Amino acid sequence: MIIDFTTIIDYLGTFAFAISGIRLASAKQFDWFGAYVVGAVTAIGGGTTRDLLLGYSPFWMYQPSYLIVTGFALFFVICFGRYVIRLNNTFFIFDAIGLGLFTVVGIEKSLSAEFPMWVAVIMGTMTGALGGVLRDILINEVPLIFRKEIYAIACILGGFIYYFCESFGFGHITTQLVTATSVILIRIISVKYHISLPVLKGHDDY
Amino acid sequence: MIIDFTTIIDYLGTFAFAISGIRLASAKQFDWFGAYVVGAVTAIGGGTTRDLLLGYSPFWMYQPSYLIVTGFALFFVICFGRYVIRLNNTFFIFDAIGLGLFTVVGIEKSLSAEFPMWVAVIMGTMTGALGGVLRDILINEVPLIFRKEIYAIACILGGFIYYFCESFGFGHITTQLVTATSVILIRIISVKYHISLPVLKGHDDY
Amino acid sequence: MIIDFTTIIDYLGTFAFAISGIRLASAKQFDWFGAYVVGAVTAIGGGTTRDLLLGYSPFWMYQPSYLIVTGFALFFVICFGRYVIRLNNTFFIFDAIGLGLFTVVGIEKSLSAEFPMWVAVIMGTMTGALGGVLRDILINEVPLIFRKEIYAIACILGGFIYYFCESFGFGHITTQLVTATSVILIRIISVKYHISLPVLKGHDDY
Repeated sequence: MIIDFTTIIDYLGTFAFAISGIRLASAKQFDWFGAYVVGAVTAIGGGTTRDLLLGYSPFWMYQPSYLIVTGFALFFVICFGRYVIRLNNTFFIFDAIGLGLFTVVGIEKSLSAEFPMWVAVIMGTMTGALGGVLRDILINEVPLIFRKEIYAIACILGGFIYYFCESFGFGHITTQLVTATSVILIRIISVKYHISLPVLKGHDDY
Repeated sequence: MIIDFTTIIDYLGTFAFAISGIRLASAKQFDWFGAYVVGAVTAIGGGTTRDLLLGYSPFWMYQPSYLIVTGFALFFVICFGRYVIRLNNTFFIFDAIGLGLFTVVGIEKSLSAEFPMWVAVIMGTMTGALGGVLRDILINEVPLIFRKEIYAIACILGGFIYYFCESFGFGHITTQLVTATSVILIRIISVKYHISLPVLKGHDDY
Repeated sequence: MIIDFTTIIDYLGTFAFAISGIRLASAKQFDWFGAYVVGAVTAIGGGTTRDLLLGYSPFWMYQPSYLIVTGFALFFVICFGRYVIRLNNTFFIFDAIGLGLFTVVGIEKSLSAEFPMWVAVIMGTMTGALGGVLRDILINEVPLIFRKEIYAIACILGGFIYYFCESFGFGHITTQLVTATSVILIRIISVKYHISLPVLKGHDDY
């Protein structure tokens, strides 16, 4: 039951991430193939990099559902492109949910590969946030998450919260739920109240 | 005999891919080293990514010939730069041949690593088409294959054709030849008749 | 004793590489997180790619000091940003020292993984020079080292010097010192005398 729920969340997150990539690709006049690739990289790029760093072949090579969900996302944008914008808030929520879940998945996969907690925090953050960076590289833009709002920081804080839950002896499912919920709330609150990190002052002369 | 022929084709494909990278690097005023790197990434970047995803060290680390062929490509552009443009059609043919062959190589390496056919199709496509994407990232341009003509799609169709040939019990060499030839013809026909995928409609407001 | 000295040099090189990434990130108005990531990628991106190609999980996943040094670099730029520019020459020297040391580290790790010398030369060059390329991709600029001065070439020449020292039966520490010093001197001399590779002539018509 909890597995089914997690799977649904996982697909919703993948769908939301893919939509974000496909929409940005469409703004760049990409064709359907290009949009699909950008959507897929946004959705699975973070987890792919995590798996390579941990020494595994990427998760999606053992399970076609992620690429199929990305295909649905492309189909959705092709059919309902003009309505997608009205659903901005819905996708924002899906994206935040995906961020929270992907962070937990990344942390747990790293711990089960016997890496220490600080590596797991980095891998959780990569799983959640790196797809968007790779997306921005593919569409030739400066990565958005390096300049706007709290995004990766929510994953990092989620990593600390996971650690504290484990240290305080919380049950496994409680730890997962608290961590994912924290990431989601931090993300939503930071966007709602325009909370962001300080910008590093530019030095004009180079 | 068939091995020798494949090897020659392999080098011609590598040469053509490297030339495409080196020419675009020269348009960006890269120095010889930069041009060499862009040429090499164009030629071997797809296969390198495939090997990492499959869990291998990249093929070129066991066989210096690919980097040597790239060196010849650089030498060729340095010496005959002004004539290279006249040879556009020749290089286009080489490039299409390389695309076909690289696709077959990628499919077979994935199958021999015991991944299922759908992974092999993706890996064949990466082997053929990802080098050009990495090239465009290095020269800071939006990847060409996401916007123009049939390119990666030829590799994907080649993957399906490979699958059908195998299913119909064709011999191994027949399957290879039919697949590579199909990719090459699809690519040539799509350029000749300006066939391309639909562009995803842009949404101006983001 | 020699290990301590190498460790200090390693940290100084990491610090200088990270500073170079963080400064360029600040010129792009990145926030602290973005600047940290760019700094880290500049410092450890080359070695990370090397380790993935060799078939290892990256070195920094077993040793947090590299990410901590990057944190100090960010702190340093945040606190002393306006003075960093005056220290340009100091950082240039640190960067050259890092380049020399990273080259030796990359060569030796590849040889100990039983790859041949020509692979080790490439891996040494990647360890030294690829971080800067990844930095430039992240900040959406054309990679500087493909257009300016001798940089990666110093690493390549260092690789040949390492090979000759080994062939002539030099002791291990002598080989390391001669190689690193050569890379550092080649880099410094090439900047001082504006030595660079020829630019590949552009072909305007494509």
